[in-house]
Amino acid sequence: MTMQAFQIVEPHKAELREVPVPEPGPGQVLVKVGGAGACHSDLHLMDAPPDRLPALPFTLGHENAGWVEKLGPGATGFAPGDPVLVYGPWGCGTCPSCRVGMENYCENNGGIGGGGLDGSDGGMAPYLLVPSTRFLIPLGTLDPRDAAPLADAALTSYHAVKRSLHLLGAGSTAVVIGVGGLGQMAIQILRAVSSATTVVAVDTAADKLATARRMGADEALVSGDAAVTRIKDMTRGQGAQLVLDMVGVDPTLRMAAQVARVRGDVTIVGLGGGALPVNFASPPHECSVASPYWGAIGELMDVVALAQAGKIEMLVEHFPLERAGEAYQLLREGKIQGRAVITPNG
Amino acid sequence: MTMQAFQIVEPHKAELREVPVPEPGPGQVLVKVGGAGACHSDLHLMDAPPDRLPALPFTLGHENAGWVEKLGPGATGFAPGDPVLVYGPWGCGTCPSCRVGMENYCENNGGIGGGGLDGSDGGMAPYLLVPSTRFLIPLGTLDPRDAAPLADAALTSYHAVKRSLHLLGAGSTAVVIGVGGLGQMAIQILRAVSSATTVVAVDTAADKLATARRMGADEALVSGDAAVTRIKDMTRGQGAQLVLDMVGVDPTLRMAAQVARVRGDVTIVGLGGGALPVNFASPPHECSVASPYWGAIGELMDVVALAQAGKIEMLVEHFPLERAGEAYQLLREGKIQGRAVITPNG
Amino acid sequence: MTMQAFQIVEPHKAELREVPVPEPGPGQVLVKVGGAGACHSDLHLMDAPPDRLPALPFTLGHENAGWVEKLGPGATGFAPGDPVLVYGPWGCGTCPSCRVGMENYCENNGGIGGGGLDGSDGGMAPYLLVPSTRFLIPLGTLDPRDAAPLADAALTSYHAVKRSLHLLGAGSTAVVIGVGGLGQMAIQILRAVSSATTVVAVDTAADKLATARRMGADEALVSGDAAVTRIKDMTRGQGAQLVLDMVGVDPTLRMAAQVARVRGDVTIVGLGGGALPVNFASPPHECSVASPYWGAIGELMDVVALAQAGKIEMLVEHFPLERAGEAYQLLREGKIQGRAVITPNG
Amino acid sequence: MTMQAFQIVEPHKAELREVPVPEPGPGQVLVKVGGAGACHSDLHLMDAPPDRLPALPFTLGHENAGWVEKLGPGATGFAPGDPVLVYGPWGCGTCPSCRVGMENYCENNGGIGGGGLDGSDGGMAPYLLVPSTRFLIPLGTLDPRDAAPLADAALTSYHAVKRSLHLLGAGSTAVVIGVGGLGQMAIQILRAVSSATTVVAVDTAADKLATARRMGADEALVSGDAAVTRIKDMTRGQGAQLVLDMVGVDPTLRMAAQVARVRGDVTIVGLGGGALPVNFASPPHECSVASPYWGAIGELMDVVALAQAGKIEMLVEHFPLERAGEAYQLLREGKIQGRAVITPNG
Repeated sequence: MTMQAFQIVEPHKAELREVPVPEPGPGQVLVKVGGAGACHSDLHLMDAPPDRLPALPFTLGHENAGWVEKLGPGATGFAPGDPVLVYGPWGCGTCPSCRVGMENYCENNGGIGGGGLDGSDGGMAPYLLVPSTRFLIPLGTLDPRDAAPLADAALTSYHAVKRSLHLLGAGSTAVVIGVGGLGQMAIQILRAVSSATTVVAVDTAADKLATARRMGADEALVSGDAAVTRIKDMTRGQGAQLVLDMVGVDPTLRMAAQVARVRGDVTIVGLGGGALPVNFASPPHECSVASPYWGAIGELMDVVALAQAGKIEMLVEHFPLERAGEAYQLLREGKIQGRAVITPNG
Repeated sequence: MTMQAFQIVEPHKAELREVPVPEPGPGQVLVKVGGAGACHSDLHLMDAPPDRLPALPFTLGHENAGWVEKLGPGATGFAPGDPVLVYGPWGCGTCPSCRVGMENYCENNGGIGGGGLDGSDGGMAPYLLVPSTRFLIPLGTLDPRDAAPLADAALTSYHAVKRSLHLLGAGSTAVVIGVGGLGQMAIQILRAVSSATTVVAVDTAADKLATARRMGADEALVSGDAAVTRIKDMTRGQGAQLVLDMVGVDPTLRMAAQVARVRGDVTIVGLGGGALPVNFASPPHECSVASPYWGAIGELMDVVALAQAGKIEMLVEHFPLERAGEAYQLLREGKIQGRAVITPNG
Repeated sequence: MTMQAFQIVEPHKAELREVPVPEPGPGQVLVKVGGAGACHSDLHLMDAPPDRLPALPFTLGHENAGWVEKLGPGATGFAPGDPVLVYGPWGCGTCPSCRVGMENYCENNGGIGGGGLDGSDGGMAPYLLVPSTRFLIPLGTLDPRDAAPLADAALTSYHAVKRSLHLLGAGSTAVVIGVGGLGQMAIQILRAVSSATTVVAVDTAADKLATARRMGADEALVSGDAAVTRIKDMTRGQGAQLVLDMVGVDPTLRMAAQVARVRGDVTIVGLGGGALPVNFASPPHECSVASPYWGAIGELMDVVALAQAGKIEMLVEHFPLERAGEAYQLLREGKIQGRAVITPNG
Repeated sequence: MTMQAFQIVEPHKAELREVPVPEPGPGQVLVKVGGAGACHSDLHLMDAPPDRLPALPFTLGHENAGWVEKLGPGATGFAPGDPVLVYGPWGCGTCPSCRVGMENYCENNGGIGGGGLDGSDGGMAPYLLVPSTRFLIPLGTLDPRDAAPLADAALTSYHAVKRSLHLLGAGSTAVVIGVGGLGQMAIQILRAVSSATTVVAVDTAADKLATARRMGADEALVSGDAAVTRIKDMTRGQGAQLVLDMVGVDPTLRMAAQVARVRGDVTIVGLGGGALPVNFASPPHECSVASPYWGAIGELMDVVALAQAGKIEMLVEHFPLERAGEAYQLLREGKIQGRAVITPNG
């Protein structure tokens, strides 16, 4: 049996190809794909030089949800038809990080991730082979076509927020710089987990700021010196406990250092290519600067719980598999609101 | 100069007495009392046998707020007229606990508290002598007559909740047993600090359950086996991450052990005189059972921040100083809704 | 093919029986047993009434180490001949606890454990069937015949200590009540992880106290009022940050409450059948009382690291499989120093 | 009454001057100075441009110990003759940071520190005026002439280590780059608080590496690529949980980023003027980079406890007050082993 799959076939070239439907081996699971999110990091992959790419071709799509189609021998805990979200960073399963569900920080896989990223096939096809049931999270009543972005856009934001949860108590302030898909999710997550935190969104675009307010931001500020002054004023001159930079270019990182406080956190999520220099002079004393990657399995279960409770929701735009190339083109042009999700089974 | 003060004069006897207005010595502060809360622990004091009492007489009232009247020599950081909340557990100031603002756990004062409890005078008089500015918290725009209960009722609840904050993430459940003044505050605080937590209130009285819902409880259950079953059902059979027992009699403690989960917290706030036996069989494995006392100075600053943001509010009933005895009588009879606050300056 | 296995066949009766050598299915692993520890909880099992027992017969031994003999289809990450320690509490693998390697607190297996406990076969036979490679920890240069007790005696003690690691800073004190096999291990672990902690051992037997000193205890005290006084004196009257009760009878629990400090931890490891009542009066304020069970996979990796570094070591006495019954008899009579380990392959 | 004091009188100029012996006001304490450490940051002060200096002149010395000479009115908790260590960062006492003893992060004093730094007089004189007893730590049996460096050199190192204590478990590795006075202290502190951590020292000078080994370092490596390779080898390619950069120039910071691990800590203590750029590419994912300042009062109590237990010790070289200028000159020339301590009272 064969199927169509949207594959990266050579540098700068991705297209639909006819491939065999995989057969799950021992412990493996075949998932019928409901939705596969199109992510900016796929564009990075398509644009990468040959020496930065794994062996080609392989199917794109690392943000996947669907229904269990077939369990390989010895695969247990799920039944055909179960709606599931697929945890994306597939690690070795035996190193200390993997043993606690942090396969995003597997010590043995080069830290790349799993299907759709590392050369093994992802979810932009009717069927996805998942190497172990340990990567499946039950979705309950959530629709896989809408839930797919929970696997990356929401998990990445949640993990970034969770690193700072101990700072987000009564009277605290969190600043989200950049209100794209992940920024919108970060605002919702902050709103959902810490009602005592004042959430401030910063962006250059007025419509993004309106969206931020709708997502629950207490303040939405246009980037610039006035935003820095306002945040200082709101925090008795001390700055914010948490600054999430969802952009990651030098100007946003500079702003992040200016509005963070002593013993606060600056967390760099955006892959804009800038860098934040740290020393005694800046950012404020003992402010922790870090750049995390994706998230843990247990955190993905939390994300599903938040979505089931209606506390977070991703705006999604569905595309049939044959329009995958077009979806990426729109993404590249900044024309996707929220997340483009490919739905290979309609 | 003299003033009237409501004092405990001998076991089982409290009355208004004429006393000198104190003069603040070096580092001390005289506070003009706005409000002094009447607390159940005052009734315990009045009912105590002679050998459990400090030297008498002394003025009652350990939950105080007012305005700075006069600063003693060398007392700095505040100015006359500043509205302030008085942190109640006055410690030695130099032991390791006091050094980090946990004077409620002072290693040298016998763990009793400060004015109104340990034999030094409390706030049920027009003026209160506070031994150091380190016990004052700025109240900003809050009215001391209404804010007094923040110093004990709110701080005690906040401290109890804060012990478990790391457990109150996405999908978590907290159970509050007993919806009196402190229980109502605990519900509001849970609501204010962790929007992701499902808050369940349990009480025997229907009107208390209605109040609980108004304060933000997601569920309000009548005590009994059905409540236990319901909580188990809500938590996939696992029980709640946090159980706050604001009553502390054997039946409520038994329920607490039943509805808590593995690695959860059971926190005993109520002084009902019961005890919860812990061993391998019950409560669930690694459930942490503890009975905290009052709270820390830094936590009291958090409490004020929550009140200023309008996230917590105590129902108060004001009484002039001459009706202090009557207020305690009503408290004893269970006829006070929220908190009775004595207002010696009107 | 068949082999001999030491099985519990009916209440109060365990004996050698001829059973088939199991064949590993998909994802499973056959382990050639190097050592299988004889544990007090096996005696509890043998003495249990019929209604408290799983289906009989099954092979005893839940503290196992050996060498990978054969991998089932799809089982990866290990090769035949690899020396491995077997993590004992086999959970469902998919609940939130299992996802982070805390299968000791699996939400779906009734909290009993795995082979040798729950009705599936344990390690007192030449071969042990392990249901997944996720239960295997590489032993490196450690000899499985000696390392077996790391899986329970050491892991249980390590997990109990780890709960309190944040309390064990400069100037802290830890008390270990009961210097049997687990107590000796607890002393070594405290010594290994927190050089700044004063370790106090308490026991009734002089030879146990001598052993405690050899294991690194700073003080070794005979149980009784003088021990309580001494511990209070050593801690400026405040008590110990951590009290580990490895006995768990009412008198030791009473002592634990007396020597613990405000905000300390009392951790009940011993299954002596006593219970520690908690309320406002005792133990000291906010002292956390809990009874944990076994430990997590990540912690077992830590335990192996400590053993490889030579920082912890279990005294073991080896018995061939045919003398398993005798080993349990000696254990029952208190005649085993350290741990009796059955070595079915010599 | 007058005394000699070593003062900074104008930019680049410090000298002995005749000044009045201060009289302690309400709440204040006069300390007879036993020892006042000469610190590199004093050299920074002497070299600073006029606009970066507080009002001159003032007495140098922010690392002080001595004996209580006289208590001002209302100052309690200490008696004349008590040997005390002086906590150096004098904050406002009322902001949230000061309330928990973190006056190093006072929100209102500009984060500079106290006597000897901010324009008020320090300890390089026979007597030092301390503004509150809350800055005094009892020294017990420790000699103030030797204990002075605990107040800065040891506290700064301890605070830097403490930030990472949760990472320093079984099998962990900590790297200390730069084995000057603070580096030596950091090695001892790591040794004292976490026996399970492998401590690696890195320096360019062979004699410093020999000192590092004597202080308890498990490995002592000459700076360079081979050191990076060796640390990676020791850590299965993962890098160290904690890297303390006690130098802070670009090459050491670059090395720090190379040898740190995913989710590790890089803590910049040295004021070498370099900066460590953080983004997705480097340092490893979620490695937290921060530059702390000094330490908290509670931590200083821990430091004293470690010194009293004989677990940390500073090499000191004593100088009478009249040789203070010479001591700074030797410090500038790198000729001080450990710490130069001025002893104004012999």
